[in-house]
Amino acid sequence: MTPDDDEINFRTRKWIKPEDLNANGTLFGGSLLRWIDEEAAIYVMIQLGNERVVTKFISEINFVSSAQQGDIVEMGLRATAFGRTSMTMRAEVRNLFTRQSILTIEKMVFVNLGPDGRPAPHGYTDITYERDRVPERLRVNGASPQ
Amino acid sequence: MTPDDDEINFRTRKWIKPEDLNANGTLFGGSLLRWIDEEAAIYVMIQLGNERVVTKFISEINFVSSAQQGDIVEMGLRATAFGRTSMTMRAEVRNLFTRQSILTIEKMVFVNLGPDGRPAPHGYTDITYERDRVPERLRVNGASPQ
Amino acid sequence: MTPDDDEINFRTRKWIKPEDLNANGTLFGGSLLRWIDEEAAIYVMIQLGNERVVTKFISEINFVSSAQQGDIVEMGLRATAFGRTSMTMRAEVRNLFTRQSILTIEKMVFVNLGPDGRPAPHGYTDITYERDRVPERLRVNGASPQ
Amino acid sequence: MTPDDDEINFRTRKWIKPEDLNANGTLFGGSLLRWIDEEAAIYVMIQLGNERVVTKFISEINFVSSAQQGDIVEMGLRATAFGRTSMTMRAEVRNLFTRQSILTIEKMVFVNLGPDGRPAPHGYTDITYERDRVPERLRVNGASPQ
Amino acid sequence: MTPDDDEINFRTRKWIKPEDLNANGTLFGGSLLRWIDEEAAIYVMIQLGNERVVTKFISEINFVSSAQQGDIVEMGLRATAFGRTSMTMRAEVRNLFTRQSILTIEKMVFVNLGPDGRPAPHGYTDITYERDRVPERLRVNGASPQ
Amino acid sequence: MTPDDDEINFRTRKWIKPEDLNANGTLFGGSLLRWIDEEAAIYVMIQLGNERVVTKFISEINFVSSAQQGDIVEMGLRATAFGRTSMTMRAEVRNLFTRQSILTIEKMVFVNLGPDGRPAPHGYTDITYERDRVPERLRVNGASPQ
Repeated sequence: MTPDDDEINFRTRKWIKPEDLNANGTLFGGSLLRWIDEEAAIYVMIQLGNERVVTKFISEINFVSSAQQGDIVEMGLRATAFGRTSMTMRAEVRNLFTRQSILTIEKMVFVNLGPDGRPAPHGYTDITYERDRVPERLRVNGASPQ
Repeated sequence: MTPDDDEINFRTRKWIKPEDLNANGTLFGGSLLRWIDEEAAIYVMIQLGNERVVTKFISEINFVSSAQQGDIVEMGLRATAFGRTSMTMRAEVRNLFTRQSILTIEKMVFVNLGPDGRPAPHGYTDITYERDRVPERLRVNGASPQ
Repeated sequence: MTPDDDEINFRTRKWIKPEDLNANGTLFGGSLLRWIDEEAAIYVMIQLGNERVVTKFISEINFVSSAQQGDIVEMGLRATAFGRTSMTMRAEVRNLFTRQSILTIEKMVFVNLGPDGRPAPHGYTDITYERDRVPERLRVNGASPQ
Repeated sequence: MTPDDDEINFRTRKWIKPEDLNANGTLFGGSLLRWIDEEAAIYVMIQLGNERVVTKFISEINFVSSAQQGDIVEMGLRATAFGRTSMTMRAEVRNLFTRQSILTIEKMVFVNLGPDGRPAPHGYTDITYERDRVPERLRVNGASPQ
Repeated sequence: MTPDDDEINFRTRKWIKPEDLNANGTLFGGSLLRWIDEEAAIYVMIQLGNERVVTKFISEINFVSSAQQGDIVEMGLRATAFGRTSMTMRAEVRNLFTRQSILTIEKMVFVNLGPDGRPAPHGYTDITYERDRVPERLRVNGASPQ
Repeated sequence: MTPDDDEINFRTRKWIKPEDLNANGTLFGGSLLRWIDEEAAIYVMIQLGNERVVTKFISEINFVSSAQQGDIVEMGLRATAFGRTSMTMRAEVRNLFTRQSILTIEKMVFVNLGPDGRPAPHGYTDITYERDRVPERLRVNGASPQ
């Protein structure tokens, strides 16, 4: 399965409840950032087959439109570059039904860490559409997918 | 696009953090139930094109295996029956990498409500794989998808 | 003190606040499930004198009626069967003032675990109405209640 | 049913999970205060049959001992005085198994508010051990318990 | 009082507790973003004397170093430009004791909204070090500070 | 820098969102207590240069006025006495714009703990207005500030 190379892949969904609102009654921007950061971490772990990854840099976050209680939003990501120890993505949060963009992020850069907590080469150069890059902790019988 | 009729569709993912653990240090069952209930509500809204839906009945929840801090889990659902005012699904939560089942639910029944808060016919008899059943509040120019 | 053998014992109470609501402004079903799962775990620990217990199976959850912001709900449980390594209860959540049932669960099955994390016999065959089955960690001077 | 007049009545229980800990790994005092304040509000609503009550004054809070992850604590209250528009209680949080006191509060004073949000007479002078003082919103057919 | 014109003003502090950690046991980046977004919103409300403000754009977020459970962090902001309907700041989160930078943000842009929810001129061109720009809702006797 | 000796120092701010409200739609007293307890812990750690401190006693909490969604509150503290192993403060929470007092606490007593978890002398007798009392864990090259 090789989807369109430029297409963002939307997975996780959230139903906006009172606990997600700011004091003006619209979706709190800070909640939105918290959600997309978790989704990005998951996406990177799948791409690099490593659970030890950290956010390093984020650039150009546009809050395109707002969202309200009762809206369903979905979070999407797309790898755009693989460095030696890092990986870059763009991200979007949108309304699930109307597909209206709520938030776009041009660049999120995560770094791959080794067991010592320092940047380590990850050895990947392209996107996987499968879950074949399994973290070492979860591999059975030494069967490495790389 | 018509996927395999029996296949559960996994979408939302969660990265298990300290806030999700019980006092024994494993994933708190109550958190798991909270997550799958939200995901089910979203799935029903997409199937019925209505934001006013409520959980009515759940049957046979099996806690198959546990999960730990650092695991990524994904939540999946599959409509199995459409009643006049209700909809039935089965659900599964599994480990994203190992695909080991964590929780399975045989039957989750949601009811479709009308503007008066009472059960109302929804008019659907099969699964949609698109998002073409848009809630009235979000439809533009009276363009109804039904 | 030996209460009526069939009577559910209601203890923990919750005051429904905005953080507990779903996007329709009524009590979020997922929160309800989270609360009753914690209350059940506590009830089992008291019955089995063991802190290492896990939810294994839940059957027949009926969402009888809804609840709103400002309502006070109370959670009740009743052991119905003691297996060799397991224990079964029924549960109810109701409105504290009106005693209107909100949620009923026919069967919640928990399993007693040993120090190795595997099912272990618990040695009990009936309900205690006292707190005389104290977990080993909390017993003083080797005074075991079993 | 008229229990011993001085006895605190323990109801709500909490199982201490990672989300309740401070940075030193023991129960966060602020969480404890949050829990007992909610439990006190519920107790007052039952005594005064009114949902519009507010904390006015708290005196002498002793943090007697600490609690850890995995402990079960229970919250208890006891009305000690009924003013014209107020009500006074003492409170205790203790370990459910060992009955070791964790927190004691000498005086919590709540005020009864009228529909206009101002202090209003509540008309009660003693403790009820039943739930016969039902808020007006929940009374059926004008059957008032007062 | 006119502090150094380039100096960031640090106010709100957070003590990092288990609930703030990611699955690797360090401070979750998403929590950090949530905290600084709330602090920025408060800073803007003070500068513009308006409670209706929204995050519009964020640029160049650097995650300089990590933080752990038990660390105290403080959040700082500094207005760098006043547009007709917008305001721009830079931000920093640092360790309170060591003053080691944890997160820096080059530009956070907020927009001032009118009662109709659309961008509206705010009329300010420089920083206030007082709290003299009081939102209309909170002004007494028509005493406007502008 | 030696501010007025009686003046409370206000630092941390909170913007009241739906998640902070009680069921009557005003600020939940329990949240307020949680916030001021965290702020007090931070203040004590700065004064005593020790991260191992616990709340021991609180006296005379007055809930002076209420607060609503959208209000910004700020928390303030002031050391009033240094014991051999303890420290006493008074505290206030107020509305940032109107400076209306919301909560006042006459006495909060924290105890300084040693590595063994028991009360230990802290060696300080007066307030610091700097952050020169750095916890041992964070000191570099044995450079102690005391």
